[in-house]
Amino acid sequence: MEKIKIALLGLGTVGSGVHAILEEKQNLLQQRFHNKNDREVSIKIAKILIRDPAKYHNVDPSLLTTDYQEILDDDSIRVVVEAIGGEKPAVDYMIRAMERKKHVVSANKLAIAKFGEPLVKASKKNNMEFLYEAAVAGTIPILRTIKDSLVANEITKMSGIINGTTNFILSKMTHEQSSYKDALVKAQELGFAEADPGSDVNGDDALYKIAILSRLAFGTWMDLNTIDCKGITEVTPKQIEDAQKRGKVIKFLARSEKVDGKIIASVSPEEIDRNHPLAHVDGAMNAVYLHCDNAGELLFQGAGAGSRPTASAVVSDLFAVVERL
Amino acid sequence: MEKIKIALLGLGTVGSGVHAILEEKQNLLQQRFHNKNDREVSIKIAKILIRDPAKYHNVDPSLLTTDYQEILDDDSIRVVVEAIGGEKPAVDYMIRAMERKKHVVSANKLAIAKFGEPLVKASKKNNMEFLYEAAVAGTIPILRTIKDSLVANEITKMSGIINGTTNFILSKMTHEQSSYKDALVKAQELGFAEADPGSDVNGDDALYKIAILSRLAFGTWMDLNTIDCKGITEVTPKQIEDAQKRGKVIKFLARSEKVDGKIIASVSPEEIDRNHPLAHVDGAMNAVYLHCDNAGELLFQGAGAGSRPTASAVVSDLFAVVERL
Repeated sequence: MEKIKIALLGLGTVGSGVHAILEEKQNLLQQRFHNKNDREVSIKIAKILIRDPAKYHNVDPSLLTTDYQEILDDDSIRVVVEAIGGEKPAVDYMIRAMERKKHVVSANKLAIAKFGEPLVKASKKNNMEFLYEAAVAGTIPILRTIKDSLVANEITKMSGIINGTTNFILSKMTHEQSSYKDALVKAQELGFAEADPGSDVNGDDALYKIAILSRLAFGTWMDLNTIDCKGITEVTPKQIEDAQKRGKVIKFLARSEKVDGKIIASVSPEEIDRNHPLAHVDGAMNAVYLHCDNAGELLFQGAGAGSRPTASAVVSDLFAVVERL
Repeated sequence: MEKIKIALLGLGTVGSGVHAILEEKQNLLQQRFHNKNDREVSIKIAKILIRDPAKYHNVDPSLLTTDYQEILDDDSIRVVVEAIGGEKPAVDYMIRAMERKKHVVSANKLAIAKFGEPLVKASKKNNMEFLYEAAVAGTIPILRTIKDSLVANEITKMSGIINGTTNFILSKMTHEQSSYKDALVKAQELGFAEADPGSDVNGDDALYKIAILSRLAFGTWMDLNTIDCKGITEVTPKQIEDAQKRGKVIKFLARSEKVDGKIIASVSPEEIDRNHPLAHVDGAMNAVYLHCDNAGELLFQGAGAGSRPTASAVVSDLFAVVERL
C-alpha cells in the first residue's frame, strides 16, 4: 500500500469535513482508487495547520501544528488542502506550497477570484496541480464539467443561483411572505447565514464565483470591478408579490456572457418567469444553468455549502490529484 | 503537432455529429488540449466504417471503408468510436478493437447494459480505455460525476427521467391534454420519436440506462430481468388529469436503490408531487436525481438525445482517452 501524505490547512467547517470524510471513507476511497487505477493507494493526513491546538479535542494531537514552515519543509507531504479561506495568509500559503512542489486543492473562492492569475501561474511554473472545484457551487461538479465534459462546446452564456444564503432568504420571502429581516434571522438560526451576512447579501460571494465560472467558460480572468453587483437587502415582500402576480419570481442571479469578445457579468436580484429552469431552485440550494453550442442547455443543482457537501468536492479533487501522481 | 488517428464506426445520427464536431472544433480542441496538457495534439478521423459508401456525399471518400478488418489492421489507429448501436456487430467490434490495442468510446446503451461485463473485461485485460458517457442521458455528464466527482460518497438512491421521447409525450399529454396517440404522432413529426417507438415507449431504452447507472453507482452489473419495467402506452389523459387535481404529475421514472445489499430498480410511469425536483423536467429533456451520503441531493438536467448533444459527450470521452495516451 502506497501512502500519500497530505496536509490540511484549517479545521473549520470545510477542513473538519475533509478530515471526517477521509477517516470514514478511507476503505471506500482505497477500493475505488484500486478499481480505477489498479494501484493500492491510501490518502493520509500527515499534518493539520491550526491556530489553537487546545480547541481540537477529537483530533490526534500529533497531527496538529501551528507552524506552516513545518509542513513546507516536510518533503513527504505531496498535497496541501487549503481550507483557511480569505486572502491572508491563504494565497501566500498556496503559492509557497507549489514552490515547494506540493499540489494544492482549495475551496477558497475569494482567493481564486482575486488571485487566480498568480495562483495558476505558480501551478504551471512548478508543474503542480491546482484544483478548486469546491470553490464554486459546492457539490455541483461545474468546473470539471466545463473543463472536461463540455470540451467540445463553446459556452455562449450562463446564469446561476450560486449563493445559498440569499436563495434561502428569498425563498422564505416568496413562499412564506416573510420580511427580509425575519428571513435573515431564520437563516442565521438554521446556520444558513453567518452572524455577519455581509458578503452573502451584498453579492460579493456570488461575484467571486461568477468570476471563477467566467474564467473557466471563457478563458480569461475577469477584473472584478467590471462585474455589476447589487445585493438583496432592498428586495421587499411587495416586489416579490407584484412579480408573482405577473407569473414571475425574484431570484438572486449571477450571469455571465461573452458579447463581441468581451465578458459581461452581473450579480443582481432579477425577475424570472415562473417556468424558467432556475425558478424552482429553492431554499439553500445552488444551481448553474449553461447554454452550449453543441450540448444545448444544461442545468445542475445541488447543495452550495455545508461541511460535508463542500468537503465531498474537496476530496474528489484530492483523489484526482493523487490519480495523476 | 502529434496526430492521434481514430476510426469512427457508423455515420448515422451520432456518428455524423462526431464527424461534424471534430471538423468544426478542431482548433478549439487543439487549443484546449494544449492548455490542459501542454502538448500539441490533433485528433483526426482516419477511417469511417459504413455499409454503403454511395450514401455519403459530404465526406472525404478516402476515409470511408466497408471493411472493419482494415481498421483493425491499421496499427496507427489508436481509438475506435463505436456509433453503430445495437448488439450485432457492435459488441464484437468493440471487443476486437480492444484486443488489437485500440481504446474504445461508445454511445451504445444496449451493448453496455447487456454486455458491459465482457466489454469491461476486455478493456481491463488489454489495458485499454473503455468510456461511454454518451450512452446514458446524452449531454448530462452523469457517469463522470459518479466516478470522479462523487468518489467520496455512497449513492443511496437515484431516480431519473432518462428517455426523452416518453418525456416529450407525457409532457404533451399533461400540458396540452393530448391523447397518447396524438402526442406520439407529434413526437414522430418533430423527430423526437422513431417510426417504431417500441423500445422508448415500452421502457427498454430507460431500462438499459438505469442498469448502466446502477452499475456505476453500486458497483455491480444488473441482471436486466430483475428490473421491473412498465411502459407508458397505457397512460390515459384521465389519469394525468386526476393526478393533477391531487397536486401530482405523471412522469416516466427510472429508479434504482440499494436495499440490504441488493439493487432494486424499476422503470415505470409514476405520480410524483408537483414540487418534486423532477416534476418540472419537460419536453425531450432528461434529468437524473441522486441522493448521496455526503454531497446530499443533486439534480442534473440536459438534452438526452440528438446528434450534436450526444456527439458532444462522445467527443469529451475521446478527448479524455487521448489525454491519457
